[in-house]
This record gives sequence, structure tokens and C-alpha cells, in this order.
Amino acid sequence: MASSTGDRSQAVRHGLRAKVLTLDGMNPRVRRVEYAVRGPIVQRALELEQELRQGVKKPFTEVIRANIGDAQAMGQRPITFLRQVLALCVNPDLLSSPNFPDDAKKRAERILQACGGHSLGASDAIVTVLKLLVAGEGHTRTGVLIPIPQYPLYSATLAELGAVQVDYYLDEERAWALDVAELHRALGQARDHCRPRALCVINPGNPTGQVQTRECIEAVIRFAFEERLFLLADEVYQDNVYAAGSQFHSFKKVLMEMGPPYAGQQELASFHSTSKGYMGECGFRGGYVEVVNMDAAVQQQMLKLMSVRLCPPVPGQALLDLVVSPPAPTDPSFAQFQAEKQAVLAELAAKAKLTEQVFNEAPGISCNPVQGAMYSFPRVQLPPRAVERAQELGLAPDMFFCLRLLEETGICVVPGSGFGQREGTYHFRMTILPPLEKLRLLLEKLSRFHAKFTLEYS
Amino acid sequence: MASSTGDRSQAVRHGLRAKVLTLDGMNPRVRRVEYAVRGPIVQRALELEQELRQGVKKPFTEVIRANIGDAQAMGQRPITFLRQVLALCVNPDLLSSPNFPDDAKKRAERILQACGGHSLGASDAIVTVLKLLVAGEGHTRTGVLIPIPQYPLYSATLAELGAVQVDYYLDEERAWALDVAELHRALGQARDHCRPRALCVINPGNPTGQVQTRECIEAVIRFAFEERLFLLADEVYQDNVYAAGSQFHSFKKVLMEMGPPYAGQQELASFHSTSKGYMGECGFRGGYVEVVNMDAAVQQQMLKLMSVRLCPPVPGQALLDLVVSPPAPTDPSFAQFQAEKQAVLAELAAKAKLTEQVFNEAPGISCNPVQGAMYSFPRVQLPPRAVERAQELGLAPDMFFCLRLLEETGICVVPGSGFGQREGTYHFRMTILPPLEKLRLLLEKLSRFHAKFTLEYS
Repeated sequence: MASSTGDRSQAVRHGLRAKVLTLDGMNPRVRRVEYAVRGPIVQRALELEQELRQGVKKPFTEVIRANIGDAQAMGQRPITFLRQVLALCVNPDLLSSPNFPDDAKKRAERILQACGGHSLGASDAIVTVLKLLVAGEGHTRTGVLIPIPQYPLYSATLAELGAVQVDYYLDEERAWALDVAELHRALGQARDHCRPRALCVINPGNPTGQVQTRECIEAVIRFAFEERLFLLADEVYQDNVYAAGSQFHSFKKVLMEMGPPYAGQQELASFHSTSKGYMGECGFRGGYVEVVNMDAAVQQQMLKLMSVRLCPPVPGQALLDLVVSPPAPTDPSFAQFQAEKQAVLAELAAKAKLTEQVFNEAPGISCNPVQGAMYSFPRVQLPPRAVERAQELGLAPDMFFCLRLLEETGICVVPGSGFGQREGTYHFRMTILPPLEKLRLLLEKLSRFHAKFTLEYS
Repeated sequence: MASSTGDRSQAVRHGLRAKVLTLDGMNPRVRRVEYAVRGPIVQRALELEQELRQGVKKPFTEVIRANIGDAQAMGQRPITFLRQVLALCVNPDLLSSPNFPDDAKKRAERILQACGGHSLGASDAIVTVLKLLVAGEGHTRTGVLIPIPQYPLYSATLAELGAVQVDYYLDEERAWALDVAELHRALGQARDHCRPRALCVINPGNPTGQVQTRECIEAVIRFAFEERLFLLADEVYQDNVYAAGSQFHSFKKVLMEMGPPYAGQQELASFHSTSKGYMGECGFRGGYVEVVNMDAAVQQQMLKLMSVRLCPPVPGQALLDLVVSPPAPTDPSFAQFQAEKQAVLAELAAKAKLTEQVFNEAPGISCNPVQGAMYSFPRVQLPPRAVERAQELGLAPDMFFCLRLLEETGICVVPGSGFGQREGTYHFRMTILPPLEKLRLLLEKLSRFHAKFTLEYS
């Protein structure tokens, strides 16, 4: 609870320190959670299975799990029709195979038609780590530093958990770079009314598309260490780096290479997902968190919380296995895998470049380079009369602009106000995902609409 | 906030009443959640798509969704290797097909070997509805009535949400029947220190395996209506009914058939899952909630909350489609589907019967009929010296018994204390899922162990 501003050098000089996140200081509601079905009995059963595998003599040869209502784990065969349709859904190439009955194929086609997209992945893991950190009331309530603009999972989760959102602004003039001086400002102000305990970084940035330099990551780690903040590194776009000179550096690797006192002590949770990268497999909810230097007792609490209900679907886990260990050069699938991966990333890089170019040619629109991730976050000038009109309608000015854009052009983008932006500036987030030629038309149409809108209200 | 005990007849005489769960009274943290990426812009885009389909003239022919980072929804083709391995995982019959490369097959085999079981399904939906209901502080904190014994998802979630758990006891002497007089007792006591707003019912019961009669369900609905409680009906075991004379009745159907004033007003959420039933597909996380008479504004809040992060995996959604609409009699897959379904349910019925028989032949063990679901919850006599020994070790007596059972026989069951039980009684929950012959050996081994344990401590 003690503020550590000012005792920076002392902190670095010291040896081992108490963790930011300890069993005593963590979310007390999480501690109170109990979950019998996966309690000490099941943990002991796992140990016994391991001992049996190691050849330890026991009065039995097998652990029989009669604790959980999972019929297939106990040998029940899946119903054929269900699995046939699922195989056709995940691999529609099989629709031309003669080995599947017609009704299974028809059903799979109908389901595939009706399926919309989904975009989550690592979200549940992020929510879980934030949950652990939330504690205190009033002036001791947990504060969490998040970038502005941010991905609204953060603001939504902090609101739901009753934590204090502490904004630090990314620097639009320097291609949305993260500035440690701004972190200090945000932290200093926050300490007046809450207890900041964690710092979230999104790299590559969402919605802003910047890629952090190695120097910046080192500075962020030093800041978190000195100020005793738990670090959350949202790295789900780590494969999506396009700009010449930009390179992805993982917080964990940089931390490890910084050596003592940081490497062995700074608490870090890093997140990845199958929804992004070259895979784009949003529908499978594959995501993971890797924790570094987390207090062992807290880590147990995290596992408990996850086993209460955060059980990821098996197809998503299978997918994650493939992403973490892709085919090796000697494998028969290697060549095709690499070719597909490169093609996806090359096309995304071309779309990132095109987006920046077309927007920056349009008067009244300026767009930072899309160094990584999947989004542009261009700034738009809105004429004062448009701002007034929006206020009359009870809308944020950028919401008013985006709604008009949608009504007149069919283009669906998200107003910057949902992500946060400096007062008086207006943005929108647009993905770079439509096919290249469609994207070109879309960018031009949007730029023309903005010109017309500006004329209409000037 | 006003207690309604005593104004029962008045409530029934009245016409339309305010909902239990209103926008004003719901969890204020949920109301504060905002989620830009799926806000009003996206809702309007959906409406526009519908208008276009209906032939309404627009200045464009297509809505282009540049709002969400779902690459495949924008036309990116999935990476072949990833989808091949997933198809092999969901339908291992394909492992013998010549149309898959060797490395994909090997990888699928390795993943299938490493996959443990999972048991969740409708859990996330239950948590979401409970979240909406939680509000107030101190004496106005939300109370939720849950059965004892209960499935620990309920106690764990209420603890995490900071709601008050209100226990009502099932009647072990009457095969774990639900007794409305006991609901009145529990409610009356709870009103002294919290504000009960919801009643959870698990039917068929977990861990207790009872199946509610239609009369009982009607009485519960009348009770909930008179006492102004939101009803949560956990019906994930609806296909798992074995006992002669037992039949599953859905709360929704019974409610609808009761007519006014109940049918049009009683708020109800009913839950189902692909993890149980004849399907047993725990690994896919397919579950759903159906809400009846929920306030429209609250329902919007629920959808918002679900879209922040509760996006179910696509394979699970596909599976749910199949469960809700299984093959029809004229479909080519009908015969095999029915045969497999009947075989699964018949074997479960035999196991339910066997479990009850063997346990009831063992001195010191008594077991109610397993009318439904997948569990027995037998009561065990533990000698006073075993209870003392457990207390010395700081363990619940049934935990001590179950740990010893595991160490000496390799049988893993869950102590009753994790589900709740009447003070001074001891139980354990054991699934009926092991294959029939293995189950017989297991039941006999367990009974013999209990005899030995009793002798040891008497």
C-alpha cells in the first residue's frame, strides 16, 4: 500500500523484494472461491498417476477417475453423426469426399453459411489475470494503467471488476509510441485516488498498429520494476509486423536478457492467441497466458479460478499446439504451410502500406504507418458545425461521422471514442482485412465521403 | 427491497408486476461496461444488411465490415495444415483416410493422446445470468437460493461475485426431493441479512441424481412467483433419465402450460449443454441459455456482457445445432444416430441401477436411486475415531476417507463436503461413467475398502 515514488534507486539496489501480487494482497473474492470437483483429491490423483508412470509401487495399477462427468474420458464413443459434421465444418475440403453421408454434408454447409466471425482468443486469460489483481476499497482500490487508445476489453473488464482505469496516452505525433514520461505522469496522478498495481501494454498496438522498439520495452520494464507494477503484455499480434525497420520483441525475452534484478523478479503475464497472426482462426478461441515470476501461491489461485469455468475448448487447444510448434522443415506439410503463411503476411503488409498511403493523400485525414497488428487508426478533422450537430443529437462527434459513413456507403468502422483519444481529436478504427482491391475502393470511398461530409458542414 | 412474505395472494391477484430483474436493479458494474467494437455502429450495420436482403434501396449494395479483426470473415483462407489436423482430431475415423498427409495424422494422434477431459458447457451462461443479478451492499446484497448438495460452480461463482449463498436442503430421506416448505424456511431466514432475488434448481440433480416430478416443478414456479424470485433452471442432464416412472419436464414447458399469471410473467433462465446427455461432448464447450420473460433492457445488457468476451467457440456452436435438431427419420444418418444414442443411454441406465444395488448391499453405505444425471451421492457411515483422526489432520472427515480411498485403491471420487451436506452426515460423489464391468469391480472394491476403513477405526 506504500507508495514507491521516489525510492527507485533503493528498489534497484535492494535484493529480493516482496511480489506485487501476493496471496494476502490479491482479490479476496478469488481466494474465497472453492471448487470441490477439482480440489486436493484430484491433485493427488494426478500425482499418483505420475508416480505409477515412474514405476512407483502402489496397491493398484491404475487411477480410476470417477470424479468428473466427462463420459468420453471414461470410454464412451462419440456419436458418429456429430463428429462427421464437425470434421466437415473445420475442414470444408472434405465436402467433396465420398466418405461422408449426404445429410452430414448438407448440415455442415448450412452451419458454415450461418457462422459469423468471432474475435476473442486470449481475452479470457487477460480477464483472469486482472481479476487476481483487483482488491481494496476507496483510496486503496486497485488501479490498472492502460494505453489510450486501448482495446475496449480492458476498459470493459476494469469497469465490471470495479477497478480504477488509469489512462496513459500514446504519442500520436511519434507514430503512437509509448513514452515513459507519460507513464510517470499517469502513475503520479493516479496515486492520489487509488493504488496502481498493474501496467498493461499492447504490442503490436490495437487499435493503433505501432510496434515497440526494444529500447522502449526495456524502459517499460525498468519503470514497472521501480514502481512495483505487475506487467501485462498483450502480444497477440506478434506475427503481424509489416513496416521496414520494425521488429517484434517479446517482453519475456527482453526481460530475461536484462538479467538481475529484473529477470528474476519482475512479475509479467504475456498473452497470445490463435485468432490473429497468419492463422486468423478466431472461431476456435485458442489463447494462452504465460506467467513469469508470479508468486507460487497466487499461481495456484489462478489455476483454481481457471478450472472453475475457464476451460478452453479442445479444438482451440489443438490449434494452439500447432501454432506453438508449426511443421518442421523435414515434415511433408512444411512447404505448403510456409507458402500459405508467407502469402497471408505479404498480403497484409501490402494492405497496411496501401491504407497509410491512401489516407494520407486525403485532405483532413492523417494516418500513422500501420507497423503491425491489423488496424489503422486515422485521425479525421471534423468541421465545428458537424461537432455541434452531433452534440444536438446526443452523439460523440466521431460516432456521428461513422454512423453517417455507414448509412451512406455501407462501410462499417468503429469510432475512436470507444478506444479513447485525446480530448478534441477524432479518429476511427478500420481493419486492413478486406481483399486488396476491395480495400482500395473502400479507402477511396471513405476519403471521398469525408470530403463531402466536410463540405456539407462547413 | 421490500419483503414480499405474506402478500402472496395479493401478488397472484395483481395483474402485471415489475420484473425481479430490471435495468435499475441489476448489477451496476455490468451496466457500466462499454464495448465499442460491438456497439451501436455494429448494430446498425446488422440492420442495414437485413434491409439490403429485404430489397430496401441503399446508396450501396453491400455492408463492408472493417470493424473487427477477424481475417477469415474478410475472406482469408485458413492455413491448410491447421484445418487438416483439426478435422482429424474431431473425427479420428479420418486417420485411416489416404487424403491426409502423414505429419498431420501423426500430430493429430499426439494431440488426441494428450487431451484430457473437460466438463463445463453451460457454465459460462450460468455465471453470466448470476452476474446480472448481483447488486446491493450489506443487508441489500443479492441472495441466491441454491440446493444443498449443489454443484460447486454455484458456490464458487457466488463467492467470486460477492453474492450471498442461501442454502436450501434437498431431502435425502425422500430420494433428494425438493421440498417447498424448506424453500420457505431458507428464504425466511435469508431475508434477515440479504435480499434474495434468485432461485437455482438443478434438475436432474447434480450431484444427487434425482428427477423432479411435474407437481414439484409447478410448486417451485408458484413459490418463485409469489416470492418474486428469478428462476435459474439448470437442465443440462435432461436426456439422462433412467429410473422407471421418472420423466424429465422442462421448467419452461411447465411454466407455459400453467398459463396466467405465471406463464407471461415469471422470469426464468434455462440452461443446456452438449457436454452431457447422450452426446458427452465435454471438449467443445457448447452450451446455451434460454431466457423467458426477462426485461428487454436487461436482456440487451446480457448480450453486451456476452459479446465482451463470452464468445463461444464455433465447433461448439455447430455441435449445439446438431443436438437441438438431430437427424430426422428420413435422413440417411437417422438410423445410426438413434442406435448410438439408445445404446449410450441404455448402458448408462444399467450403470445407474448397478451403482444403487451394490452400494445398498454394503453395510454402512446407503445410496438413493440414481434417477438421472451421471452421479451417485451415497451416504457413508464414518466411525467416530476416523472423524477424530481427520480433525487431528485438519481435514473434513469425508475428505480424509476419500484421500485414503485414493491412496489405497486408486479410485478418485469427490468428498460430499465440497457439494454441501447436512451437518454430521458424510457422502461422496461418484460418476456412473466407467465401463460396466470396470464399474462393478470399482463398486465392490470401494465397498470393501469402506468395510476395512470402518474396522480400522472402530
